[in-house]
Amino acid sequence: MKAVLVVKDFNPQTGEPGEVDCLEVPTPEPVKDDDVLIKVAYASICGSDPNVLKGLFPDRAPCPIGHEMAGTIADLGPRAKELGWWVGDRITGNFFQSCGACEYCHDNMGQFCPEAVGKVGTQAEYIVWSASQLYRLPDSVDLLTGTLSEPFNIALHAIETADMKLGARVAISGGGGIGLMLVQLARLAGASEVTIFEPVQSKRELALALGADHAVDPAGGDAIAETAEITGGRGFNAVLEASGNPKAAETAIKIADKQGHIVYFAMYPKEYELPVNLYQHCYHNELRIQGMFLGQYSFARSVAMLPRVNLKPLIEKIYPLEECKQAYADQMSGKYVKLVFDCLA
Amino acid sequence: MKAVLVVKDFNPQTGEPGEVDCLEVPTPEPVKDDDVLIKVAYASICGSDPNVLKGLFPDRAPCPIGHEMAGTIADLGPRAKELGWWVGDRITGNFFQSCGACEYCHDNMGQFCPEAVGKVGTQAEYIVWSASQLYRLPDSVDLLTGTLSEPFNIALHAIETADMKLGARVAISGGGGIGLMLVQLARLAGASEVTIFEPVQSKRELALALGADHAVDPAGGDAIAETAEITGGRGFNAVLEASGNPKAAETAIKIADKQGHIVYFAMYPKEYELPVNLYQHCYHNELRIQGMFLGQYSFARSVAMLPRVNLKPLIEKIYPLEECKQAYADQMSGKYVKLVFDCLA
Amino acid sequence: MKAVLVVKDFNPQTGEPGEVDCLEVPTPEPVKDDDVLIKVAYASICGSDPNVLKGLFPDRAPCPIGHEMAGTIADLGPRAKELGWWVGDRITGNFFQSCGACEYCHDNMGQFCPEAVGKVGTQAEYIVWSASQLYRLPDSVDLLTGTLSEPFNIALHAIETADMKLGARVAISGGGGIGLMLVQLARLAGASEVTIFEPVQSKRELALALGADHAVDPAGGDAIAETAEITGGRGFNAVLEASGNPKAAETAIKIADKQGHIVYFAMYPKEYELPVNLYQHCYHNELRIQGMFLGQYSFARSVAMLPRVNLKPLIEKIYPLEECKQAYADQMSGKYVKLVFDCLA
Amino acid sequence: MKAVLVVKDFNPQTGEPGEVDCLEVPTPEPVKDDDVLIKVAYASICGSDPNVLKGLFPDRAPCPIGHEMAGTIADLGPRAKELGWWVGDRITGNFFQSCGACEYCHDNMGQFCPEAVGKVGTQAEYIVWSASQLYRLPDSVDLLTGTLSEPFNIALHAIETADMKLGARVAISGGGGIGLMLVQLARLAGASEVTIFEPVQSKRELALALGADHAVDPAGGDAIAETAEITGGRGFNAVLEASGNPKAAETAIKIADKQGHIVYFAMYPKEYELPVNLYQHCYHNELRIQGMFLGQYSFARSVAMLPRVNLKPLIEKIYPLEECKQAYADQMSGKYVKLVFDCLA
Repeated sequence: MKAVLVVKDFNPQTGEPGEVDCLEVPTPEPVKDDDVLIKVAYASICGSDPNVLKGLFPDRAPCPIGHEMAGTIADLGPRAKELGWWVGDRITGNFFQSCGACEYCHDNMGQFCPEAVGKVGTQAEYIVWSASQLYRLPDSVDLLTGTLSEPFNIALHAIETADMKLGARVAISGGGGIGLMLVQLARLAGASEVTIFEPVQSKRELALALGADHAVDPAGGDAIAETAEITGGRGFNAVLEASGNPKAAETAIKIADKQGHIVYFAMYPKEYELPVNLYQHCYHNELRIQGMFLGQYSFARSVAMLPRVNLKPLIEKIYPLEECKQAYADQMSGKYVKLVFDCLA
Repeated sequence: MKAVLVVKDFNPQTGEPGEVDCLEVPTPEPVKDDDVLIKVAYASICGSDPNVLKGLFPDRAPCPIGHEMAGTIADLGPRAKELGWWVGDRITGNFFQSCGACEYCHDNMGQFCPEAVGKVGTQAEYIVWSASQLYRLPDSVDLLTGTLSEPFNIALHAIETADMKLGARVAISGGGGIGLMLVQLARLAGASEVTIFEPVQSKRELALALGADHAVDPAGGDAIAETAEITGGRGFNAVLEASGNPKAAETAIKIADKQGHIVYFAMYPKEYELPVNLYQHCYHNELRIQGMFLGQYSFARSVAMLPRVNLKPLIEKIYPLEECKQAYADQMSGKYVKLVFDCLA
Repeated sequence: MKAVLVVKDFNPQTGEPGEVDCLEVPTPEPVKDDDVLIKVAYASICGSDPNVLKGLFPDRAPCPIGHEMAGTIADLGPRAKELGWWVGDRITGNFFQSCGACEYCHDNMGQFCPEAVGKVGTQAEYIVWSASQLYRLPDSVDLLTGTLSEPFNIALHAIETADMKLGARVAISGGGGIGLMLVQLARLAGASEVTIFEPVQSKRELALALGADHAVDPAGGDAIAETAEITGGRGFNAVLEASGNPKAAETAIKIADKQGHIVYFAMYPKEYELPVNLYQHCYHNELRIQGMFLGQYSFARSVAMLPRVNLKPLIEKIYPLEECKQAYADQMSGKYVKLVFDCLA
Repeated sequence: MKAVLVVKDFNPQTGEPGEVDCLEVPTPEPVKDDDVLIKVAYASICGSDPNVLKGLFPDRAPCPIGHEMAGTIADLGPRAKELGWWVGDRITGNFFQSCGACEYCHDNMGQFCPEAVGKVGTQAEYIVWSASQLYRLPDSVDLLTGTLSEPFNIALHAIETADMKLGARVAISGGGGIGLMLVQLARLAGASEVTIFEPVQSKRELALALGADHAVDPAGGDAIAETAEITGGRGFNAVLEASGNPKAAETAIKIADKQGHIVYFAMYPKEYELPVNLYQHCYHNELRIQGMFLGQYSFARSVAMLPRVNLKPLIEKIYPLEECKQAYADQMSGKYVKLVFDCLA
């Protein structure tokens, strides 16, 4: 079968980035009783995928890549059948498989499971996952939308983490793929008003088209003054920072209302430290600042919410696996919201 | 000014119902510093208003009636001005004014405040309330929709009480005014699927038009079998019982999923007792059964949510104050979702 | 090895109860990689154990019995070693092993896992459990106390379910093993006052000795009047019903304060239905009535809390395995709080 | 009557601190219907009281001072009597009186009420407060302990804000008055282990005597290594930072377990900014960092908890009002946990 592989690692001496290629590799087979062979239909690129090419995870090549996908079941072990799966089932799934038996898993913190396996390699024609990783797509959700279920689940769990009340005034910082999901989810989670903070005009416009009530350009304008106007001088009850940009991270604290909840869940630069004025922000304003890594217990509910949102406008280009070099170059240009491989092409 | 008054009490000997009439009475005046004279534009009839005519509150006549309204400020005391109000402001408000100083109010349970005053009498040309009872209507919300803010707040707080997760499967029991608000609010509070249970076909159809995904006729069909089909055999994560009907109350428990939350907040018959099988429902299914009286801390957020919903289809007839006898007769027929007085007519 | 077995089933024709006996059986061996052979030190009898002899689970004999225990590791598979266990480790554990992979487990509801295995048979010299079921006993907790970890976890999760605020007035209904744990846990979970409702004087006295502030005899006195006196007319913020007695279940609702939380988690008669006046209790008083089955995510925290409580006074008799007939007869007499097998005797 | 007054302001030119003196002033009288004249028995000094002498609130002199007290009712208005108060009642109270009617008060955020009045001046023989500010002392709580109810309420609400699970591992940073209350409250709020971080040995010893399980000297030792040892390598589930020390604030983040909750509620230097590594602490560790200002809704529950704790060891010196200069000098020396005026002396 064809698969995208990282074929060359980042070179720390020269600074030369790593490389991907589409190669012919053996089709994997279900080995364990509960294994399922998935014929991948679409596999989207995550913003974190290029980190392998940038040296964040050294000395990996050659290795498979990609953890987002939707497809159909092509083959499966006997236990997977007992659990109700069958050939042809339309599915998506969670690549991050926690063990269910360690002290973290026993405490509902499976995202920190030291035994967890991250089954990457969805940017390929086939992949084998365990039945317990799969979620059936609702009939009304097509496979192209379905590949976005994994980042959508991150967005949904970020909204859960924000723990906002019905009628909250919500700010979304960053209009990329996650941000545009958040705009839609904030409305569906009870926001009375949703404001997008995003420097790129086309992304602001897309956010407004997808349900944002207000759009602020944090680069051009005065984010704090615009916040005051939008919120009647109060600030936002919840701020979700999805840009990963340090400047945006600092603005997030300043635009929050008293008792506001601020959620940080992007991949910030590893050494970056957000300055938090404890007297002003914590003592006087009673802010709550939270982070989030993965949403290990919300996947089923995320898939159930897919029919409520419109994710198609986030997909800007679709590539066959063979065009993976171009796809990764586009991804690393930062110009696109969401890029997808058509693995059947 | 003109005002609807209860002019005759229920007669417990003969069973004859009480009566309303539209009379000319003195226009009230702001007395306290923070009083506000409101020129009522619309005042809707609450399902509980006719209870005065049915003997629930004996020996009241003559008395004013009505606690839902939207209007404009006609006059106001100096403290009300200091608090930012002005003549002409478009407002709605909360008739139930808790004291803010007793042990219940200090514990965020103002709905149980023994010093609370219920300022009824909105079905009139003018009424005087305190500035602290008022909420400014958003620009996009007209006065006719605004009069529904009080029942809408009850519906919103019922949704809060249900405390459901994003992606929950939700059932609304009863397609009256509150039920049709709940259908819309459930979607806005993160339900992945909303099912209405309602015996009247036209109300089921309206619920579907307003966003319900499924409609069940609890009279005609088998509510439990239909639930199994709709929810894939799981049941609902949240059930909001808004009909006040004992049979519906009993069904509510049976259609809930394990760990389901069931909220009862209608006015059930005073002596009615719901049978709860503790072994099955509490021990084995871990259900949570809750009641709700008033939403004393959600009014501002409810008003902020008004632009998100469509309440106009709930209003079936509008009457001048002079036609109050007809309006109350219609209300007591049980055929209408929501009836409203046009107090400027 | 010696093991207590159910050797005869309940006879539905004659009504004759089933029987236990202590027999010689083969010592089990670790089969799976993560299996652990436990040398049981103490195994306590659960109030539900005699249900096998009363016909609740028909046609089981011969079968092992008991699910509470503390002991030491005697042998273990290679994976269990990798996970940090070793021969001689002092442990207790959770007999109820959910799969960690099904839709319930993915939703933090492992207590409803359809694949769960209840590994009974602790009333024996040895038992084999999976490493993931084990919890290390704190140094200060001896093995005799350790065998009570499983019911203690039920009690702790019931307190969690009650979801009470710091300073709450708490009532515990029933002064059996669970009730006496609840008295201690309620104090440790922030109750300002704990009141025990229990008809047996010696149990009331023990509850007072273990930290209850007030004791009420629900049989002799007027529970509602005494509640009013104890709580200054307010009622209890949380009521935990642990007796399984229908009359106590009904009292629980009547002694709750407005917005009170009532938790039912005993094994009530299968057909019993609690009457709940929706108008009074739910609409007007905003009560929250909840049930609870098992505490699948609190075991580690329960074991960590064992040094904070005094469970020794709950243990009234200790038997060698050979005296199992007497032990079960005593258990079924209802006269004892907690009975324990010394499996090393 | 005698009263402590700030008689001289801080001099920003010379840096000379302000001064207090004990003067004879007119005894206040109840003016409003719900006013209560309190004969103050004890008035403790808050760590923030000397801030007036240090220039934090410029140009105030002459002004009354002190907001902690317990005493008895000496006189009261007619409305206060109706509300159940009477001469001789033993009381304490909340100096911070929110209006109960503004948008913050309507949203349960009365601590931010712009109309709130802070009724300072408890370091005197008499003070007038509103009946709604008062809380009756439990019979078992003497007036000397009662004066600590206000800081105790801050501590209790900080524990509420930490929102910890039963069995949590808790760290208290700072062994001053609030810290030593927190040690006791953490145990009463379900901590399985409480660790005090405090550089002064005598305070560490007092914390251990009052219930801490472990004590760490953050100056002498390696706080992170000691945390690893105490918590089995996991870190603390909740960290309450009560020292106001920037170094301690930074340690707080580093000793938290994944998903740990960190609460900051001391008065940190106004310009100080805590550096938070978003990648490490928020993204990877899912920490929750929160602040807290006042506990406006927990006072009644705090008073109910007073019999559960031992606050006497916190009081190191008691002065008559005439020795106020010495008392404030001692307070500003930083050597004492809690200093109190005996206003009857």
